[in-house]
Amino acid sequence: MTGPNLASLPPLLYEPLVRRALEEDLGRAGDLTSDAILPPDLKAEAAVLARKAGRIAGLEAATSAFRILDATMEIDLKTQDGRDAGAGETLAVVRGPARSLLSAERTALNLLGRLCGVATTTRDLVAVVAPHGARIVCTRKTTPGLRALEKYAVKAGGGSNHRFGLDDAVLIKDNHVALAGGIRPAVERARAYVGHLVKIELEVDSLDQLREALDLGVDVVLLDNMSIETLREAVSLAKGKALTEASGGITPQTAPAVAATGVDMISVGWLTHSSPALDVALDVRV
Amino acid sequence: MTGPNLASLPPLLYEPLVRRALEEDLGRAGDLTSDAILPPDLKAEAAVLARKAGRIAGLEAATSAFRILDATMEIDLKTQDGRDAGAGETLAVVRGPARSLLSAERTALNLLGRLCGVATTTRDLVAVVAPHGARIVCTRKTTPGLRALEKYAVKAGGGSNHRFGLDDAVLIKDNHVALAGGIRPAVERARAYVGHLVKIELEVDSLDQLREALDLGVDVVLLDNMSIETLREAVSLAKGKALTEASGGITPQTAPAVAATGVDMISVGWLTHSSPALDVALDVRV
Amino acid sequence: MTGPNLASLPPLLYEPLVRRALEEDLGRAGDLTSDAILPPDLKAEAAVLARKAGRIAGLEAATSAFRILDATMEIDLKTQDGRDAGAGETLAVVRGPARSLLSAERTALNLLGRLCGVATTTRDLVAVVAPHGARIVCTRKTTPGLRALEKYAVKAGGGSNHRFGLDDAVLIKDNHVALAGGIRPAVERARAYVGHLVKIELEVDSLDQLREALDLGVDVVLLDNMSIETLREAVSLAKGKALTEASGGITPQTAPAVAATGVDMISVGWLTHSSPALDVALDVRV
Amino acid sequence: MTGPNLASLPPLLYEPLVRRALEEDLGRAGDLTSDAILPPDLKAEAAVLARKAGRIAGLEAATSAFRILDATMEIDLKTQDGRDAGAGETLAVVRGPARSLLSAERTALNLLGRLCGVATTTRDLVAVVAPHGARIVCTRKTTPGLRALEKYAVKAGGGSNHRFGLDDAVLIKDNHVALAGGIRPAVERARAYVGHLVKIELEVDSLDQLREALDLGVDVVLLDNMSIETLREAVSLAKGKALTEASGGITPQTAPAVAATGVDMISVGWLTHSSPALDVALDVRV
Amino acid sequence: MTGPNLASLPPLLYEPLVRRALEEDLGRAGDLTSDAILPPDLKAEAAVLARKAGRIAGLEAATSAFRILDATMEIDLKTQDGRDAGAGETLAVVRGPARSLLSAERTALNLLGRLCGVATTTRDLVAVVAPHGARIVCTRKTTPGLRALEKYAVKAGGGSNHRFGLDDAVLIKDNHVALAGGIRPAVERARAYVGHLVKIELEVDSLDQLREALDLGVDVVLLDNMSIETLREAVSLAKGKALTEASGGITPQTAPAVAATGVDMISVGWLTHSSPALDVALDVRV
Amino acid sequence: MTGPNLASLPPLLYEPLVRRALEEDLGRAGDLTSDAILPPDLKAEAAVLARKAGRIAGLEAATSAFRILDATMEIDLKTQDGRDAGAGETLAVVRGPARSLLSAERTALNLLGRLCGVATTTRDLVAVVAPHGARIVCTRKTTPGLRALEKYAVKAGGGSNHRFGLDDAVLIKDNHVALAGGIRPAVERARAYVGHLVKIELEVDSLDQLREALDLGVDVVLLDNMSIETLREAVSLAKGKALTEASGGITPQTAPAVAATGVDMISVGWLTHSSPALDVALDVRV
Repeated sequence: MTGPNLASLPPLLYEPLVRRALEEDLGRAGDLTSDAILPPDLKAEAAVLARKAGRIAGLEAATSAFRILDATMEIDLKTQDGRDAGAGETLAVVRGPARSLLSAERTALNLLGRLCGVATTTRDLVAVVAPHGARIVCTRKTTPGLRALEKYAVKAGGGSNHRFGLDDAVLIKDNHVALAGGIRPAVERARAYVGHLVKIELEVDSLDQLREALDLGVDVVLLDNMSIETLREAVSLAKGKALTEASGGITPQTAPAVAATGVDMISVGWLTHSSPALDVALDVRV
Repeated sequence: MTGPNLASLPPLLYEPLVRRALEEDLGRAGDLTSDAILPPDLKAEAAVLARKAGRIAGLEAATSAFRILDATMEIDLKTQDGRDAGAGETLAVVRGPARSLLSAERTALNLLGRLCGVATTTRDLVAVVAPHGARIVCTRKTTPGLRALEKYAVKAGGGSNHRFGLDDAVLIKDNHVALAGGIRPAVERARAYVGHLVKIELEVDSLDQLREALDLGVDVVLLDNMSIETLREAVSLAKGKALTEASGGITPQTAPAVAATGVDMISVGWLTHSSPALDVALDVRV
Repeated sequence: MTGPNLASLPPLLYEPLVRRALEEDLGRAGDLTSDAILPPDLKAEAAVLARKAGRIAGLEAATSAFRILDATMEIDLKTQDGRDAGAGETLAVVRGPARSLLSAERTALNLLGRLCGVATTTRDLVAVVAPHGARIVCTRKTTPGLRALEKYAVKAGGGSNHRFGLDDAVLIKDNHVALAGGIRPAVERARAYVGHLVKIELEVDSLDQLREALDLGVDVVLLDNMSIETLREAVSLAKGKALTEASGGITPQTAPAVAATGVDMISVGWLTHSSPALDVALDVRV
Repeated sequence: MTGPNLASLPPLLYEPLVRRALEEDLGRAGDLTSDAILPPDLKAEAAVLARKAGRIAGLEAATSAFRILDATMEIDLKTQDGRDAGAGETLAVVRGPARSLLSAERTALNLLGRLCGVATTTRDLVAVVAPHGARIVCTRKTTPGLRALEKYAVKAGGGSNHRFGLDDAVLIKDNHVALAGGIRPAVERARAYVGHLVKIELEVDSLDQLREALDLGVDVVLLDNMSIETLREAVSLAKGKALTEASGGITPQTAPAVAATGVDMISVGWLTHSSPALDVALDVRV
Repeated sequence: MTGPNLASLPPLLYEPLVRRALEEDLGRAGDLTSDAILPPDLKAEAAVLARKAGRIAGLEAATSAFRILDATMEIDLKTQDGRDAGAGETLAVVRGPARSLLSAERTALNLLGRLCGVATTTRDLVAVVAPHGARIVCTRKTTPGLRALEKYAVKAGGGSNHRFGLDDAVLIKDNHVALAGGIRPAVERARAYVGHLVKIELEVDSLDQLREALDLGVDVVLLDNMSIETLREAVSLAKGKALTEASGGITPQTAPAVAATGVDMISVGWLTHSSPALDVALDVRV
Repeated sequence: MTGPNLASLPPLLYEPLVRRALEEDLGRAGDLTSDAILPPDLKAEAAVLARKAGRIAGLEAATSAFRILDATMEIDLKTQDGRDAGAGETLAVVRGPARSLLSAERTALNLLGRLCGVATTTRDLVAVVAPHGARIVCTRKTTPGLRALEKYAVKAGGGSNHRFGLDDAVLIKDNHVALAGGIRPAVERARAYVGHLVKIELEVDSLDQLREALDLGVDVVLLDNMSIETLREAVSLAKGKALTEASGGITPQTAPAVAATGVDMISVGWLTHSSPALDVALDVRV
């Protein structure tokens, strides 16, 4: 497999979302325009294409909108998630009743544009840190209802996933520490509470906190809003003891310097909450 | 009422979404970190605040996450949708069990950040076209599952709403015209099909098409990808006969010139598909 | 296409309802009678037929019950929505396991009978006003959960649709006017609030109110409970300025006189809330 | 307890339906008219009233629409299900935000009108057979999704309930008999299949079939489409051996004669599939 | 048909449960292990087999998990519900993508093991009372959400079903009698309340109560926690007047003596709430 | 906090299940018996009690059934999850309308009995291995739809949780190894695929496999079906390199010897798939 290491999502994970999106668009009366204008037996073919170049993600999920609306639609994928597409490249060809083609168009494109947007932003950030060996990881700052898909798009972009939710790892933040009365009680309570497969990560703001965290044997340290210099020292302290993750206000411009400190991971919320959509379109061949 | 003309959304329209977002974050085991570290009877108070200045939207919907997770949470709104907030301004104060506060935090902020982001982008674009009297309208290029909320955020930003779905107005695009065999049959079929409360809008690419559309008496013409000069001529032709809407590749930079042509509306997809989230945070007071 | 201008409803719009209706009938233990008595491998064929003459609506939606219960059922439609059927006419032939045939029978017939009932009542009312050119339109007085289907049945009967819900047009009624402090503020607030594709209709009780409404430029006037004479005068006043809709206590007997006043539309709640079901049946061929 | 023997329905049985009906009416954008025109803090009071006299059913279920839309609404019931109301009688008084009052109005009235319609029709039919001691029972010919509520309305009208679904009793019809190869195998298989709490009813068309059914010891015989004379003889044959139920084309006109034959029950599908709605309204006091 | 008298459950009754179980197992990220390790195009075949001998129930429902996860999976059943399987016997063979095979494995086996466990326990208890002619019946003490399936498994084990819920028969227990002020008012109110197809069962603790119950003509008496001697006397009193059901602390050891008293039925809660799962497994053929 | 380290489950995680269980019991017609016999205004009080001694789990979740059915019910918990209760001990007192008390009784008890059953079985197994320091962990062999609750009950019994689903850790089993062509490719692909917070566990059958696993640096080794002697050697090999988990046919009798080998964890499927329910009851005080 070239490109990122990606499994195809089981339809169970995206079909309810696509169905809700179609229902949201069809409303109570369905597609007035297509129903009024197009004969029911008119067939058409259309290309789903990228208007701008980008990284593909969610192609199967997005085009399932055509099939969920109308089981007679044929969908022929021309590329796959995790690949790059050039401007104008055809990503899929869809054939079937013209009404269904146009009625599902917007739902399919809305989902595809968003996921390709996340993947493309991720790919570009991955590229700038690649020389330093740091992984780009996403956060839980995702669109309500779209977490599984957006995390998948991050992987399609070459990034790696952080927690999928509050229940799959412990991440002790400053608020937890403050409310628990210190790093030690927080870490000890967490260790006593969770199962043997759950890792513990701790957010630290200073090298003193980092030393305390390393003594307590946490699995990962989240180095929040540190200067490049402090980061470098923190990485050196943590080496061999815990994985290091840098976060806080990192941009494509600052990322290379952060990566150069030797941190294992750089986590970035804006991959999922602020990536612009990739421009994708449906080109109907009459 | 100062600011935009906004109704509060009925909870029926957003609670299912907020519930799904909470379930998505809690997963099967709930918030491991807070449950492990914080005593169940520890109470806390926190401010929801804007880290950057922006236009507020979805405050009640977003903070409902605290109440939906835990009915004992108190939520005290300090501002309201449609108002501007300064950097660092407190938008709401939330009080209750510390565990619930931290467990619902991300769900609330994810929704709030996104909707304020849409509202802020809209507000800024509205401001640049205001001198020319054009309305900024959104499109159906919305996040799957969030259409009602994102359309509401556009209103909170001072924009106006285009169709909410395929069923509340007719919008005849180039593909419909091509498949129908011309503008005339498309418009006539649409008029015969729909009820008396449904308006008909037609996309035109040229002044010739515009003239045909005006002869057919459509309610709105969508002037797609026209040059400023052509737009100006189109507006002049349509005056008193149909509303005019400009669309296609419009940016904050080009919008004033477009507005200056006298078009009634400018529609912009990126308000909803590519607005960056506003930076919002939860500040816990220990 | 002969008959009314009808699109086929996408299954997304009716399958959840049909599924709920089947679940409601099967309960927890399924069809005790058929399961007990009929061998699992017994195949049968049955005709869905109209016992009385009427207008067909919902044939595809209703017979989907057989397929949703049992994916191996074959459904062969013999007519289509919007056509008239004579007494005894076969509307569809269904083949498959005898158990599935009998278990889905009632669900299919309940839906079909109701929708054909609405369509037939509508057709008959349309016929009596046809000479005068008035359209028959339905209201929001629909069965909870069945609005999309009942509105569709009205179209199948040759009627036209009014609002599908509170969100697709403005209809200012007497209560709104009273609470707003007058017609003018009500209309002005509505116009400021809604998007460019939303029409505004106003209910008026007198010619004075009508004149005020016309001055304000509303799109449609709802002439409520007016005498024939007043209606005629109202139509004359509104001509060329707004569409006119008559409502209030209209019966098949009074409808021709109302239509003769020249109103554009006559709206009737009882099409959807009080139409008797058409008598439809399943005739099994052993 | 005066009037029919009625329990109040648990909200679990009707709230999902009411919620769906509200969502169906609010659509994506909510109540444009009320939101535009009425200030958010305007309170109002309104009476739910019967415009025509009738039997009340579903008052609590229907008015729950106000509370489900807006938890601050106060609902004050003035009568109860199973009672008669005179024309113009106030059934409930509702107070709260004017917007919520008007937004939930149609949902509440649609449900109330339908259920009171069923109850009123039932009451009237019960009255004409009362002198003969026959019970009026409903069928499974109910509106999709509304079975529990319509069956309850039949009880509110003084009628009695037949099966709620395919799973709570055995009813062997002509098709089952034909497909099973006779009455005897059908009854014997049913008896072997079901639990000890399930009764068995058999449809018979002739006195010969009746005799066979009685020999087999079924609990109830459904006497379908028999003449008055045959019915009388059937009742006499079945006396002390099985309950008797008459069905088939019974109208208010023919019901007394049917009842006079001494049958235990008369089942009528049109109570639920063809009852006109009772005219109910909301009278807002400004 | 050999074995118990069993209909196949319609998929509508179990698919939502299987879907929820799959979603519960897949979580947000899907099957990390299979997705990481197995190539997407690798096909495999596996046998679903019984590791221990037992009675089969739910085979079609359980294996539907493979098909619901992945529509391309082929499922080939080798036996059927209601039959016995020996240790090591292959129950079904499943073929398709290796990923889907392993991802759905646990969901399928969890359901199958539980239902076969209930059926096997039931079968064994049925066997020990068979010489005495008593039926084994289950109770409402079922797993939340699984009642229909567990009741079906009891039938597959040769048992019979008691009530499926609170709504399909009347069962008057000691608490009802105490709160109603006696057996007589309780029975009379029940009879007045329910339809003609609903049977009435009464729990009695003593022979005096039994005599009162029989005088009132209830359909079934539940003889709760009686000694063998009292049971025998109760059966003798009730003969020809009401069905008798013994309950209360009955074990496989005590069941034969209870059955020997001549009771018609013995009801046992632990069939559904405490049966151990049958050991079933998936054997992949590489 | 004495007893196990337990957070209270958020209602969002169990309310949908409790609601479905109530709907399953109420069916379409509700509680015929209580509705018929008990006056609507009769109040009662009842104790939820343990008939046999055991470990409590799910008390709040189970008793929520009373509140979900009827918002006026008062629930007063007398103990809490994770504590032991003696035979006859009152766990909670519930007050409110007698009808609601009896209608929700079975739903509450079914859930409580099952979860206490799991917790009690776990507690007893934990006790026998406690002297050796091994943790008892559960598996994914849970009841469909109840995983989160059953895993929580295991914690209430003093056990620890293994994976909640396929997505929160990697567990490479024999089938994966066989299909991947060896342990090394399987582990390497898994490591390349997952995020930095995901642990990798590998099932091994022999000491040779174990050595290969340890060389590859997996986090946990699952020692499947090994003899006590081999287990002891495996533990010694793995010490300091990976956590060790024993599984396969472990019973309360064999568990102490397994624990004595020094394994870190013993995983047992029957805690969740075969624990008998604890006997719990509702004692109504008239």
